[in-house]
Amino acid sequence: MMNKHILTALVENKSGVLARVAGLFSARGFNIDSLAVGETEDPDFSRMTIVVAGDETVLEQVRKQLQRLVNVVRVQDFLGVTVVERDLMLVRVSVPPGKRGEVLDLVQVFEAKVVDVGPSDLMIEVAGPEAKIQAIVDLLRPYGITEMARTGRVALARSPTAS
Amino acid sequence: MMNKHILTALVENKSGVLARVAGLFSARGFNIDSLAVGETEDPDFSRMTIVVAGDETVLEQVRKQLQRLVNVVRVQDFLGVTVVERDLMLVRVSVPPGKRGEVLDLVQVFEAKVVDVGPSDLMIEVAGPEAKIQAIVDLLRPYGITEMARTGRVALARSPTAS
Repeated sequence: MMNKHILTALVENKSGVLARVAGLFSARGFNIDSLAVGETEDPDFSRMTIVVAGDETVLEQVRKQLQRLVNVVRVQDFLGVTVVERDLMLVRVSVPPGKRGEVLDLVQVFEAKVVDVGPSDLMIEVAGPEAKIQAIVDLLRPYGITEMARTGRVALARSPTAS
Repeated sequence: MMNKHILTALVENKSGVLARVAGLFSARGFNIDSLAVGETEDPDFSRMTIVVAGDETVLEQVRKQLQRLVNVVRVQDFLGVTVVERDLMLVRVSVPPGKRGEVLDLVQVFEAKVVDVGPSDLMIEVAGPEAKIQAIVDLLRPYGITEMARTGRVALARSPTAS
């Protein structure tokens, strides 16, 4: 069964940890869809969020190996857990002044932000779940996307008692 | 001279590429501060944004080696380039109902969003430059940060003609 999994790993912030984690996935032929490695409250630790598609049995083995790696403190698999997941995109769109209004309307609908304006382009920042980002990309594509940078997803489990 | 560098690499979306890139940095003893690997317009390619501190001369060698790696299409160093850089954070804060208003005021000032509410906690989404995220973290810390996930930075160069 192939599913998109979100794994998070709390790791020590040391040279070589990322290479070992990445090596573990590639040794099994897993391609990482997105990876976000960011700071935590403690400067000695980073938190990795890994989105990967693959066979569940094999992925479970990878998860166990990951957990056993030196410098890996804790691994969490969000399979079956209700999460809040977010991705952020910076995107530059080619847009002549006459069409700018159309694009600004999209920016408003998606609660996005214009972060840079040129004579014939706009840079837009948008954050949200995967599907929201995909939707604005599809709507901006006809104007001409000239550059794009996405962070990849981060996720936290919803509080069980939360609304 | 030690400086924080932002490098981006456009890479083929294949198993093993991340491990090779990460290995290249760790072989030189560089610790990656943050790494974001996200999709691009073309599903065959991913874009990596790497934030790293280190000696400029050595980093220049790493950049050249990176450029020579199989599956690495293009490398860009943003040193001296004016960029828009963004990071996204999901953070869970422990907050009793009586203090909720205080935290919601901070959320408003920082143009952040509440994405999950529990009886005694809030999950907040905030995006912005490094300094903005650090500022809200410092203000939320006294309430009790129980969980945090950050994407790491992405960056695009400002248009030279842009305002």
